[in-house]
Amino acid sequence: MLALDGGLDAALREVGRAVDAMMDRLVPAVPGLEAPVFEAMRYAALGPGKRLRPFLAVASASLFTVGRIPSLRVAAAIEMVHSYSLVHDDLPAMDDSDLRRGRPSAHKAFDEATAILAGDGLLTAAFGVLADEATHSDPAVRCELVRRLAEAAGGHGMVGGQMIDLVAERQALDMGAITRLQRMKTGEMIAFSCEAGAILGKAAAEPRHALKAYAHDLGLAFQIVDDLLDAEGSEAETGKKVGQDAARGKATFVSILGLDRAREQARMLSRQAIGHLDLFDQKADLLRDVARFVVTRRS
Amino acid sequence: MLALDGGLDAALREVGRAVDAMMDRLVPAVPGLEAPVFEAMRYAALGPGKRLRPFLAVASASLFTVGRIPSLRVAAAIEMVHSYSLVHDDLPAMDDSDLRRGRPSAHKAFDEATAILAGDGLLTAAFGVLADEATHSDPAVRCELVRRLAEAAGGHGMVGGQMIDLVAERQALDMGAITRLQRMKTGEMIAFSCEAGAILGKAAAEPRHALKAYAHDLGLAFQIVDDLLDAEGSEAETGKKVGQDAARGKATFVSILGLDRAREQARMLSRQAIGHLDLFDQKADLLRDVARFVVTRRS
Repeated sequence: MLALDGGLDAALREVGRAVDAMMDRLVPAVPGLEAPVFEAMRYAALGPGKRLRPFLAVASASLFTVGRIPSLRVAAAIEMVHSYSLVHDDLPAMDDSDLRRGRPSAHKAFDEATAILAGDGLLTAAFGVLADEATHSDPAVRCELVRRLAEAAGGHGMVGGQMIDLVAERQALDMGAITRLQRMKTGEMIAFSCEAGAILGKAAAEPRHALKAYAHDLGLAFQIVDDLLDAEGSEAETGKKVGQDAARGKATFVSILGLDRAREQARMLSRQAIGHLDLFDQKADLLRDVARFVVTRRS
Repeated sequence: MLALDGGLDAALREVGRAVDAMMDRLVPAVPGLEAPVFEAMRYAALGPGKRLRPFLAVASASLFTVGRIPSLRVAAAIEMVHSYSLVHDDLPAMDDSDLRRGRPSAHKAFDEATAILAGDGLLTAAFGVLADEATHSDPAVRCELVRRLAEAAGGHGMVGGQMIDLVAERQALDMGAITRLQRMKTGEMIAFSCEAGAILGKAAAEPRHALKAYAHDLGLAFQIVDDLLDAEGSEAETGKKVGQDAARGKATFVSILGLDRAREQARMLSRQAIGHLDLFDQKADLLRDVARFVVTRRS
């Protein structure tokens, strides 16, 4: 298993390195005329990043009896889906962001066509990774991972959330609509990251529901802090353009609640997330630390 | 089972109707602010089209003992992936086609952002359909479908082929490179369509390989005829712009072989495809008819 006992910072770095090594193998550089799309896939997946979602998958899996390889393969698949979503969201027709994780976004480093294809390739490959028998000996487990990822990433999850986000540029959303948008756009994939560990570990219903409830609160707290960083943070700290939401007149948690109430709401959700972990022993301390980290992060 | 005994035309229509009804259920219209992405998914998947790939899946499955629902779910998933690929390929940054299947392409009927998301949503949903237990009672079968679809549609298959197609606009390809391009871009998904029927039917190695060999020749014949139609066909007949390849100076089977030799090559591949079906009885007659149809079609 991974050494996850040196505190959150060390554990995040350890999982980040291991997930990157796994993605390096799963998304190799290839020769041939198709090489550019693989280069762009690698650029998007292996660039700098917090690797928060893969960490949640590995930390959740560590609560159960799950091997290192299954845990890292699922974590890698999740990061590949996250990377694809960033590549497509950054496109000129979508959020039009030239900067991502402190570097040119994929369509700037390559071109738009290659970026679109790289996103498609990463999404496709992620499902292939989950369905491969190296991920789990039980095909029913692999199918459940595929099915749940498709739900979390699709029209009722991340893709639908991004659609609402685009609609929100032309239409003022209220607090309920913004909460739903964010639950779909980022919350579902964060929930899947935690749930995936439980699926791999064939966990009982109770711990599985506890992890989903934890992830639900964590995801919302995470997003509120994202809005706070967009309103208050600096480009140097966050590695992406800030002030984007206000510039577009987009309603966010911050524009509706104000800075102070948004910050308090994020802290409340973080405490609530930790409360859902009461049925786990100290093995869940890293997940508790993540919930604290998410509301104090500066990028 | 589907009534497939009235000749190819009737069988194509029958399967087309049944697959469309299945996609209508699998990709429903939804209320809520995310509605546009589902509308665009339905526009792309349910528009006019030959439904050749789903037909190949259903006709291949009919050689084995496969139920109607599994067969149609797999056929629908394949058509959803095909539709996503058309939506993304038509984008301004890719092939920049305003017309598809006789109608405005998705980014013209909606907008670019919605079209990108609709493609992503269709691709994601297709994997969810395959992994769902309604597709087959044996999860090992479902996993194999997911894994093989990911191979056929990903960087080593369709996505890689489209990448090479973009490279080909700036670089002259020889016959070997064009053959590889087309095998990846269209051949792999055509091969998966046939193979999927065998996977669903838990077919032995021999019939499975025969179907793949059939599909390999069929796919190449199909593509050569596509090039012929682009060189000789009319927009009214094909429902898309013609003369595109020559206008872009792109090397195709036709530009390298010339019209006559390209036509002869397609006929030879069609005969060769039919030869691979010798181990099947008259149940494979529809697949034989498809191989004849593919080289005589006018759109």
